[in-house]
Amino acid sequence: MNWQDKAHLRIPGPTPIPLRIQQAMAQPMIGHRGQATSQLLQECATSLRALFGTMSTPLILTGSGTSALEAAVINTVQPGEEAIVVVTGAFGDRFAKIVKRYGITLHRLDIPWGESCSPEQLTSFVQAHPRAKAVFLTYCETSTAVLNPINELARVVREHSDALVVVDGVSCLGAVPCLMDEWHVDIMVTGSQKALMLPPGLAMVAVSDRAWAVIEQQTQPPFYLDLLAYKKSMEQASTPYTPAVSLLYGLKEALLMLEEEGWENVFARHQRLKRMTRTGIRALGLPLFTNDQDASPTVTAIDGRQVAWETEALRKHMSQMKVTIAGGQQHLKGQIARIGHMGFCDELDILTVLSVLEMALVKLGVSIELGSSVKAAQEVMLDV
Amino acid sequence: MNWQDKAHLRIPGPTPIPLRIQQAMAQPMIGHRGQATSQLLQECATSLRALFGTMSTPLILTGSGTSALEAAVINTVQPGEEAIVVVTGAFGDRFAKIVKRYGITLHRLDIPWGESCSPEQLTSFVQAHPRAKAVFLTYCETSTAVLNPINELARVVREHSDALVVVDGVSCLGAVPCLMDEWHVDIMVTGSQKALMLPPGLAMVAVSDRAWAVIEQQTQPPFYLDLLAYKKSMEQASTPYTPAVSLLYGLKEALLMLEEEGWENVFARHQRLKRMTRTGIRALGLPLFTNDQDASPTVTAIDGRQVAWETEALRKHMSQMKVTIAGGQQHLKGQIARIGHMGFCDELDILTVLSVLEMALVKLGVSIELGSSVKAAQEVMLDV
Repeated sequence: MNWQDKAHLRIPGPTPIPLRIQQAMAQPMIGHRGQATSQLLQECATSLRALFGTMSTPLILTGSGTSALEAAVINTVQPGEEAIVVVTGAFGDRFAKIVKRYGITLHRLDIPWGESCSPEQLTSFVQAHPRAKAVFLTYCETSTAVLNPINELARVVREHSDALVVVDGVSCLGAVPCLMDEWHVDIMVTGSQKALMLPPGLAMVAVSDRAWAVIEQQTQPPFYLDLLAYKKSMEQASTPYTPAVSLLYGLKEALLMLEEEGWENVFARHQRLKRMTRTGIRALGLPLFTNDQDASPTVTAIDGRQVAWETEALRKHMSQMKVTIAGGQQHLKGQIARIGHMGFCDELDILTVLSVLEMALVKLGVSIELGSSVKAAQEVMLDV
Repeated sequence: MNWQDKAHLRIPGPTPIPLRIQQAMAQPMIGHRGQATSQLLQECATSLRALFGTMSTPLILTGSGTSALEAAVINTVQPGEEAIVVVTGAFGDRFAKIVKRYGITLHRLDIPWGESCSPEQLTSFVQAHPRAKAVFLTYCETSTAVLNPINELARVVREHSDALVVVDGVSCLGAVPCLMDEWHVDIMVTGSQKALMLPPGLAMVAVSDRAWAVIEQQTQPPFYLDLLAYKKSMEQASTPYTPAVSLLYGLKEALLMLEEEGWENVFARHQRLKRMTRTGIRALGLPLFTNDQDASPTVTAIDGRQVAWETEALRKHMSQMKVTIAGGQQHLKGQIARIGHMGFCDELDILTVLSVLEMALVKLGVSIELGSSVKAAQEVMLDV
């Protein structure tokens, strides 16, 4: 028997796909320039406004999340201009790499991995670099399981600078609130394969009027990642290049499912999954990599640097019991283990992952009480 | 009743998706850095070698076909350098637009739309522009239904120049032979939504050693479209950024289906579909936009400039009978009608599209004999 259908993918993206979305994606192909695709794009854009918290029309790119990160950089800052990148982990570092690749002068604010950037840290950095044209931030830093306080960070940038505020929201949008217009975020980016419960392949970008004014002045826009081309096409309910139609079908269905659940309920569910996961891990006496305040509702990291066993061995044992979790990236490789709990994930999934975590620890010879983390998470679930 | 399942999508891509491929794509999501994805990438790469006719390892990008066209330009030619673009239609024109966007000096060889570029035309043009670093060609020019003689064109470039030969094979690879190593093509590009029977969202690129030598010298490579990054990742059976996993599942299945049919049979089928379509249209007395020699086995264009009725009205009538065909692009808008017959398309599909073409002509008041194009195509099919 093929047990693939019983696999538990608990990495911080790609995330499991609900059957409803699989079925939506399996609809017959349609012409990419026909009325059906136009309607699909418009329906997606309408629902995406709520996801981003914007009155503007979000754009849909066919590409990995990184394609949208690059688009956010090269459409807004010219080679030779200055930019601030706040690096709280591997994805902030990716922003920095893109900035450097294009000959933009990089001012890099490095925050210790596992911590969020505070408004105070950012304030002094923004004041020290007044010529920065844009400040690049990460909402959820997937690599460290940290959620940065984007609302406050955007506020201090706006108070102390004219720089655009550009945010990577790939691994949390759809799981946490986003009010980009109210927060004065200029560009917010996300991807399909995280809280949106879709396969990878779509990247969504929302852009403020202030950012469009900058983008329209670009003298050397790129081609495939030319945001203005996507805007002009979207005004005609179209895309400049053939979009990933099956993923658009899936996106429409995913947004419908999230609307049916209700955004507030979606956010509350992810908060509950975070609390259950953290409470369960703490009940086993395992150290967490982030504090409660900084921790993301979408992913939780166990700190393997302070334990006697190897996180990679833990992952291997869990994988043999059909639960896949993630390891660390860059210098955290082999140092942390990350459990994804976003998108198509419910409370019972957390009980399963904790059960398997316990059994893997037993196999590693760690002295823990079986069932103890499950019990702790059940108590959170029952709110006792 | 929803008749969507009975729709006939006969545009030159996106093309209909076979159920086997839909089911393959609907498999549970897997980690993009795990063993299963590595194996999937390796299996796809192995089968793609036969598609491209290369011993090199083809690369897989997540993006529209245009993302790969851009990658082929910006990884090989620097701003200020010279390039030749042969424009036989809208997609050659797209290559030219990308070249200009990046400040590359463009030498544009314009061929009348509806004709292929001859080796003689290219020879004198290549000789006139000896400093060109690359020659950009289109294998099937989708917008005009023309197949350019890539083997011969690549040969004359190689004989008279050191320029790289870069070919857009998006709308024909998998339907016509491609022997890029033997033909000395340096970069060949294709997309998922044409003869490969997949939804849009993947672009494949194969690169010769000679082209890699040039690419490795690039001082300002792009980021998302950095081909060297894809090469280095592929050597580890991985991708630099999260790939469109569900489309990879589909690609593996599509290549398996084509291998099962046998590449020679696949090519012969497309030749048969071309002959049936052209013979049927001729039996109705309608003019074709290309001659038999230049016509692509993947798409056929009816010349609407020489008839009393409107091609857009024809398309509308056909659409009401559930058959969607394409119109013209750019200055051919409203001037031609294009019937796609690539990928998941068989002989009976051609009989259907011809039947509906006949009925639409009757609705337009055109004097034709019902059944006459079907009969002509049946005779081709029966080889009488």
